[in-house]
Amino acid sequence: MTWRELRFELTTRYAARNMAKSSPSAEDDFIARHFKPLAMAPGALGLTDDAAVYTPPPGHDLVLTKDALVAGVHFFADDPAERIARKALRVNLSDLAAKGATPAGFLLALALPPETDEEWVAAFARGLGDDSAHYGCPLFGGDTVRTPGPVAISITAFGLVPSGCMVRRAGAESGDRVMVSGTIGDAALALRVRRDGLAVSDAARAHLRERYQLPRPRTALAAAVRAHATAAMDVSDGLAGDLAKLCRVSGMTARVTLADVPLSDAARSVVAQDRALLETACTGGDDYEIVCTVPPVKLAAFRAAAASAKVPVSEIGEIVAGEGAPQFLGADGQPVAWQRLSFSHL
Amino acid sequence: MTWRELRFELTTRYAARNMAKSSPSAEDDFIARHFKPLAMAPGALGLTDDAAVYTPPPGHDLVLTKDALVAGVHFFADDPAERIARKALRVNLSDLAAKGATPAGFLLALALPPETDEEWVAAFARGLGDDSAHYGCPLFGGDTVRTPGPVAISITAFGLVPSGCMVRRAGAESGDRVMVSGTIGDAALALRVRRDGLAVSDAARAHLRERYQLPRPRTALAAAVRAHATAAMDVSDGLAGDLAKLCRVSGMTARVTLADVPLSDAARSVVAQDRALLETACTGGDDYEIVCTVPPVKLAAFRAAAASAKVPVSEIGEIVAGEGAPQFLGADGQPVAWQRLSFSHL
Repeated sequence: MTWRELRFELTTRYAARNMAKSSPSAEDDFIARHFKPLAMAPGALGLTDDAAVYTPPPGHDLVLTKDALVAGVHFFADDPAERIARKALRVNLSDLAAKGATPAGFLLALALPPETDEEWVAAFARGLGDDSAHYGCPLFGGDTVRTPGPVAISITAFGLVPSGCMVRRAGAESGDRVMVSGTIGDAALALRVRRDGLAVSDAARAHLRERYQLPRPRTALAAAVRAHATAAMDVSDGLAGDLAKLCRVSGMTARVTLADVPLSDAARSVVAQDRALLETACTGGDDYEIVCTVPPVKLAAFRAAAASAKVPVSEIGEIVAGEGAPQFLGADGQPVAWQRLSFSHL
Repeated sequence: MTWRELRFELTTRYAARNMAKSSPSAEDDFIARHFKPLAMAPGALGLTDDAAVYTPPPGHDLVLTKDALVAGVHFFADDPAERIARKALRVNLSDLAAKGATPAGFLLALALPPETDEEWVAAFARGLGDDSAHYGCPLFGGDTVRTPGPVAISITAFGLVPSGCMVRRAGAESGDRVMVSGTIGDAALALRVRRDGLAVSDAARAHLRERYQLPRPRTALAAAVRAHATAAMDVSDGLAGDLAKLCRVSGMTARVTLADVPLSDAARSVVAQDRALLETACTGGDDYEIVCTVPPVKLAAFRAAAASAKVPVSEIGEIVAGEGAPQFLGADGQPVAWQRLSFSHL
C-alpha cells in the first residue's frame, strides 16, 4: 500500500518525464493534496503507512467486494473524471447493498497513463470524496501506479452485517417472489443510443446517459434485503443472466413476466421504436439494481421497508422448482428466446 | 465482485472475438477452472457470489493493504506468469509482515488483454495458488476484466494483529537501532544488469533476477517485529527513501553506516565494478525486506526471535533526534550525497 510508481522499463520519454519530478516529497504531496481528505478514518493513518488498520465491531461479519473498471471497457475515457470515480465506488457499494451490508470503507488502486494531468486527478478525487462522504465509506488506503495503457481503477470495498446475516445468492426457494429495485436496462440502452444513433428525445438521452455514468447503489435497501430476502444479488451483468446465476446456485429456476420488468419512461421510449431492444434492456447490464427473492409471507413487510427507504421495488416473477435459465414470458404467455442472457463473459 | 467483462466500446475485432464465446457458463467455467481451487475459505463461497464474507476473530484488528502491478512497469511482460502472480501476492504479504500481521486472505483484480491465452491464465493461477497455500492466505474473491492495455493486477490483502498491536511507521525514538532483514539492492541491481549489460557471473545474474522476480515476504518475522519494534515498514521504494518516510512520520532522522547495509555476494560483485551502483542498491527499491527500529534494550530479544524465525537481520544505524533525510555515512565517516532517495514517485 505504498503509493508507488514506475520502475525503469518504460519509454525514455516516459522515464525522463517522471524522473524530472522524482522526489519522495513530490509523491507524498500529490497524495496528500488529492487523497488525504478522503482518508477520514483514524485507521487510514492519513495514508502515511504501508497499510491501514480496522477494528471490526464485535458481533459483525465483514463483507468484502472488489470491482475493476478500465477506460474504454467500463466507461468512456472522456466521461467526466468525477463521474468515473463515483461509478467506480458505486459499483462496489452496489455489491455491498445487495448483500445487506452497510459500507465501512474502501481501498483504491489507480493506474494512470503518463499524460494524465493533475486536474483530472483532482476531479477524480473530488468525485470520489463526495460519494465517500455521502455513503459513509471512507478511504483506507491504496496504490497509484503509472500505466502505458488506459486509466484503470480497482476498488475493494468492505461493509458490515450482523454475524451470519449476509444475504447470499443461494437461498431462493420455490414460491418466492422475484423483486427488483428501480428500473432495468437504462445503462444498456444508453450505449445503444450512443452507438446506433437512435432517435430519442434529449430528455430521454440525458436520463439514460445519467444512469450509465452514475449508478445508484441501493444502500438504503440493504436493511430490507437483510430482513426479508432469501437470496439477493446486484444486477450488473444483465437481469436475465444475473437471475440465472442466482437460480443456479439456489438450485431453482424462475418465471418472469416480461411486462412486469420495470422500465423508465426513457427506456420505454427507446423500446417503443424497436421491441428487440427489450432484449438489450434485460441482458445488457450496468443496472446496479438489486434483484432479490422474498417469500410471499414477507412480501408486504419487504414492500413497506422499501417504501420507507424510498426505494421503488417491483415484483417481476416467481421462483419455481426446476433447472435451467429463468423463463421470461411475453405478452402471449410464451417464453421469449434470447440470443444471450448477459454481455459479461470471458 | 462479479467476475465480469467487457462492455461494448472496443474494437470490432475485440468485440467479435469475445461475443463469439459469450455464454454465462463459459465465464463461470473459466473462473471455476482456474481460480476456485484457490478460494478455500468458506467465506469465499466458491466465488459464486457478489461478495465474500469474513468473520474476524475477537480481539484482533484487521490490517489492510493494496498494491497494483502493471506489465512493463512493475514486471516484464515476458516474465513467467507463475512468477508474476506470486510477486503480486508477495508484495502485499510484505506489507502485512512489516506491520506485524498474519495473512488472512486476499482479493484479486486481474485485467487481461484480449490476446491472453488460457495457458497464461492457468500458469498465473497455479503460481498464485502455490503461494496462497504456502503463506496461508486464501483467495476470497475478485474481478477479471478485459483491457486494451497491458496486464494489470491489483491485490488487496488483509491480515490480523492482536487489537492495537499493528506496528506503524510512526513510533521510532532516538537511540533505537535501525534494523533491516535480508539483503538490500538485489532487485534494483538486477534491472541495471539487464539494462546496461553489466558483466557479472551467471550465478550472480541468476541470483539478482530471482530476487527481482520473486520477492520473499518476511512473514516469518512478523511476530518479532510486533514484539520488539517501535516502528517498521517494508522496503519497496528504496531503503534510503523508505527510511526517510519512516523517520519523517516519527519526527526523527537517522544515521546509517553504509558499510553495514547488507548486500548479497551477487550485489557485492556488481558494486565492486562501480561504487556508484551502491546508490542504486540503496535507492532502487523492489527489495521487499523489512526496515524497523528496535530500542537497544530489546535488541538481543529481537535478534533471537529473528534467528528462530530463520530471517537474517542486520543493524545498519541509529535513530537520532532531528529533521531531514537520514544520513548514509561512507567509509570516511562523512554523509554521501545521492541524486535521489527513491525511484518511486508520481
